[in-house]
Amino acid sequence: MREYRAPLRDMQFVLHEVLHVEKELQQLPKHAETDADIINQVLEEGGKFAASVIAPLNYSGDREGCHFDPASHAVTTPQGFKAAYQQYIQAGWPALSCAQEYGGQDLPVVVNTLFYEMLNAANQAWTMYPGLSHGAYECLLAHGTEQQKNLYLPQLVSGAWTGTMCLTEAHCGTDLGLLRTKAIPQADESYKITGSKIFISAGEHDMAANIVHLVLARLPDAPAGSKGISLFLVPKFLPNSLSNTDASLGERNAISCGAIEEKMGIHGNATCQMHLDGATGWLIGEPHKGLNAMFVFMNAARLGVGMQSLGLTEVAYQNALHYAKERLQMRSLSGVKAPEQAADPIIVHPDVRRMLLTAKAYAEGGRAFAAYLALQIDKELHHPDAKVRQIAADQVALLTPIAKAFMTDNGWLATSDCMQVLGGHGYICESGMEQYVRDARINMIYEGTNGIQALDLLGRKVLQDQGAKLRQFGAQIQAFIEQHGLDESMDEFITPLADLAVKVNKLTMEIAMKAQQNPDEVGAAATAYLRVLGHLVYAYFFAQMAKVALVELEKQEHGDPFYRSKLSTARFYFARLLPETATLIRQARSGAANLMALDVELF
Amino acid sequence: MREYRAPLRDMQFVLHEVLHVEKELQQLPKHAETDADIINQVLEEGGKFAASVIAPLNYSGDREGCHFDPASHAVTTPQGFKAAYQQYIQAGWPALSCAQEYGGQDLPVVVNTLFYEMLNAANQAWTMYPGLSHGAYECLLAHGTEQQKNLYLPQLVSGAWTGTMCLTEAHCGTDLGLLRTKAIPQADESYKITGSKIFISAGEHDMAANIVHLVLARLPDAPAGSKGISLFLVPKFLPNSLSNTDASLGERNAISCGAIEEKMGIHGNATCQMHLDGATGWLIGEPHKGLNAMFVFMNAARLGVGMQSLGLTEVAYQNALHYAKERLQMRSLSGVKAPEQAADPIIVHPDVRRMLLTAKAYAEGGRAFAAYLALQIDKELHHPDAKVRQIAADQVALLTPIAKAFMTDNGWLATSDCMQVLGGHGYICESGMEQYVRDARINMIYEGTNGIQALDLLGRKVLQDQGAKLRQFGAQIQAFIEQHGLDESMDEFITPLADLAVKVNKLTMEIAMKAQQNPDEVGAAATAYLRVLGHLVYAYFFAQMAKVALVELEKQEHGDPFYRSKLSTARFYFARLLPETATLIRQARSGAANLMALDVELF
Repeated sequence: MREYRAPLRDMQFVLHEVLHVEKELQQLPKHAETDADIINQVLEEGGKFAASVIAPLNYSGDREGCHFDPASHAVTTPQGFKAAYQQYIQAGWPALSCAQEYGGQDLPVVVNTLFYEMLNAANQAWTMYPGLSHGAYECLLAHGTEQQKNLYLPQLVSGAWTGTMCLTEAHCGTDLGLLRTKAIPQADESYKITGSKIFISAGEHDMAANIVHLVLARLPDAPAGSKGISLFLVPKFLPNSLSNTDASLGERNAISCGAIEEKMGIHGNATCQMHLDGATGWLIGEPHKGLNAMFVFMNAARLGVGMQSLGLTEVAYQNALHYAKERLQMRSLSGVKAPEQAADPIIVHPDVRRMLLTAKAYAEGGRAFAAYLALQIDKELHHPDAKVRQIAADQVALLTPIAKAFMTDNGWLATSDCMQVLGGHGYICESGMEQYVRDARINMIYEGTNGIQALDLLGRKVLQDQGAKLRQFGAQIQAFIEQHGLDESMDEFITPLADLAVKVNKLTMEIAMKAQQNPDEVGAAATAYLRVLGHLVYAYFFAQMAKVALVELEKQEHGDPFYRSKLSTARFYFARLLPETATLIRQARSGAANLMALDVELF
Repeated sequence: MREYRAPLRDMQFVLHEVLHVEKELQQLPKHAETDADIINQVLEEGGKFAASVIAPLNYSGDREGCHFDPASHAVTTPQGFKAAYQQYIQAGWPALSCAQEYGGQDLPVVVNTLFYEMLNAANQAWTMYPGLSHGAYECLLAHGTEQQKNLYLPQLVSGAWTGTMCLTEAHCGTDLGLLRTKAIPQADESYKITGSKIFISAGEHDMAANIVHLVLARLPDAPAGSKGISLFLVPKFLPNSLSNTDASLGERNAISCGAIEEKMGIHGNATCQMHLDGATGWLIGEPHKGLNAMFVFMNAARLGVGMQSLGLTEVAYQNALHYAKERLQMRSLSGVKAPEQAADPIIVHPDVRRMLLTAKAYAEGGRAFAAYLALQIDKELHHPDAKVRQIAADQVALLTPIAKAFMTDNGWLATSDCMQVLGGHGYICESGMEQYVRDARINMIYEGTNGIQALDLLGRKVLQDQGAKLRQFGAQIQAFIEQHGLDESMDEFITPLADLAVKVNKLTMEIAMKAQQNPDEVGAAATAYLRVLGHLVYAYFFAQMAKVALVELEKQEHGDPFYRSKLSTARFYFARLLPETATLIRQARSGAANLMALDVELF
């Protein structure tokens, strides 16, 4: 138990048989040389690292947690975390999808994304340390000055230093316009920054020599609200010289950890209260445009959070499956299956299978979707044709909130179902199952709550451009439907997919019209709407996967069991999970009145 | 935060305005004197005890947990637990619904049930100690010898001793037929019992002088499987004499705690591994009929588990509501609501209201349902007319698995939604919210997993008598529908209720037919089917509550705000929660093939 094996076969299936990444990457000059062999090899090695180095630290890290010393303000990570991080950077893993000019390996985002699925499956709390560094890398790469990039990026790419994102304050999380941390300009173009931040993941730790904090703060002349927020680079240790690139560490900056939080899960990751007391920082990007710069970080982070829950779904599934095959309890209702034993393994029971298949389907659907989305990011970044880049960018914008919210909601459902497979044993810490559930719970909250994702999707990504992005993605689904519409073997998938696509269009138009009368209609429909779109996306990918499986099974007399499994999982998805849309559409259509009618004091 | 106020107004509404308990109890000779005043007074005092004595220990108890000393095998409960228990027994609370002849107060089960809602809302882990004792009381009352009852019941009724239920062994939980603990008859009519039990809640602790264990074990001549299990009474300390009733404690029995479990939640309750090493015990009831005797305990316990989640739903709702009114974040999409403040309170946002109303509706629907079910138990026990007793017994049999599984699944959804209202703050232990979620999770597992409840409902309670019990309850719903079918103001409730009732009949018949061909169809449909029935029941009670509210609001020009709130909540339930049945019915109808097709090795 508490074991993890990287799902390499399924990753290869998604990448090569469904998405044809090699062909797609050939169109991108930057990645034209990245062939299937390289990708498979990287994932195989990554899977080994995840399974052998950090997976064994997941349970112990949860039990031990992080330690905070109030005297020195130091945070110590759980036993083994630091050593594993050393192995990680010695093997060059942080550089995987970073730019070559800063020491990176220039591999595509799609590879890094699946690599992170494995890291998260093995140990989400540990993975947050390098994960946040990679986010800081992307933000600096996009918005830093040449000097900042030359100084800091090589350190983040090598993993010698880690990064954070310091947004939240005690009184503001979602509503960053309220933030109060102040930045006072100095004569030398630096700033003195003062304020307090909370919920800073990896804000302080013992794993790396330096920490590069990206801090949101207000300049003295800042307009009120979210249009007056600037982004600053605030290193834990100041560099000795801004012009050199040797990165030797100078004096300790006036940013320190005041406490770490006791949380429901991710105990191995230090969630820090950070105090800035005239800390020295440098502006990243333009004044008052800090939120825009931060959104580069946030978008990548949102897919990253989806991958956290995908990883947890996969590892929870593997462990529940192991238990369900071994645990003997009751006889199958349709006749004894294991007469040589005192009872049948519980995997004979339909309801146990329902729970296992829920996790299996959400893992496999999520993997195909996430890999597709990551590939669009690669296209957005590197396709030579601006039009293709724009289409990819639109898809990334549309699909990112779905990746964050749908995948994390499903992760919560799936890990809880997997825990249920173990009965009382799943509630005991030692099984490891309840940790997956607790860890999965934060993913619905941070990097923008799932409610905020839903508003972002419906309000900003769908309604703001009169559904243009959605229509573009819908046209792609429509093309698939038409391509396979006369294929009888695909009928069981194409019919419900086409039906849902029609319903999504109607629903979108209906909400758009209602929202013109009352903007609260957007908030009232958004959460259900996002899940409807999530299912549209998963149905589309399961239909594609089913098609590949059907073709392969036709080729071979007995058929590779992998494809039979895939086909069964797709059928399960269409029969048992997709029908959630029947409820969701009713909820989304039910309007704002049933939510808004009650006076506040009557709650 | 972390506060609790007993929902007395809503309890009174349910008891007096919806269920008319006074009139109902007058028909029961035993409770004919129990009037509304007595009931209200008891609940008010009970609410005070819950809120002031045990609620303050909930968070600290979770953080501290129980302590086990391997040298002495002793368990120490968290600070304050023992003193609170002393207050509890000094006030006579354990005796509330116990028989007068053993020192009880003879109050109806319906009162005790709502009392337990409050205890659980305040502190589920603490409440499990007296809760299990009450279960042991009921089991002994029904199956004990006169001697056993005279000796043990007064101690359980006073609370001087507590009780447990020792069923599970490491290799068997659901499938008790596999259990191995042995009982060897002795010359003096006692038994020497040897074996190991796990997951024994309150199996060892420091709160009471003695613990009365009810232990399942096998006699030497026992048939294999579940028909060879007997029930034994195994006190921690042996009584000095079996014939006396002074209950002075003799020697320590050979039953001891080997370890306590580290769990996801209910940390304040000791979950013990119990070792019996030739422990002295006495048979309860007939040989080999232990499971039947235990089921008295289990049925009451199953409603009790439902009440645990109802309590957690209510307290999570109260705390999320408090936060939603205070926390300022963003502006309402439909215009600024609190211009004097930097942002609007988050309760202006539709999606926050959706989460709050989900918890509110599940709390109020669950309360009405649970009180009704408890009243049927009172009727089953004490109605002078055998026919009425039988009808009540049938309803209790039918509705108990729904109370256990539907209420605990809803409690999980609702506490998680309430935690989400707090965003990142909800994930921090200090908020108290994440504890409600962790505590609520066990309720879906113990006393028979929710999957087992679903099988019990569909297989045993519905299909086994060809739907007779369901038809009887359905007729009651039908009568209500006909009574209000022409009432226009009730149309919004009656129409969907009637629609669902028709669908339930069709669904039941369809499953019954399919099950004749393939018994796995029962297991494949059961979990969704149980939730469909749960919604039928809640829709029925919300329609009744709406009717009362409509009548009251018609009487008064402006109307008591309580009734306006109730009406809004009912509308929310019908608009947003009941539509889950659209999905559930599709899932229940989708059949066994999508679950059973996949070979075990292809998972």
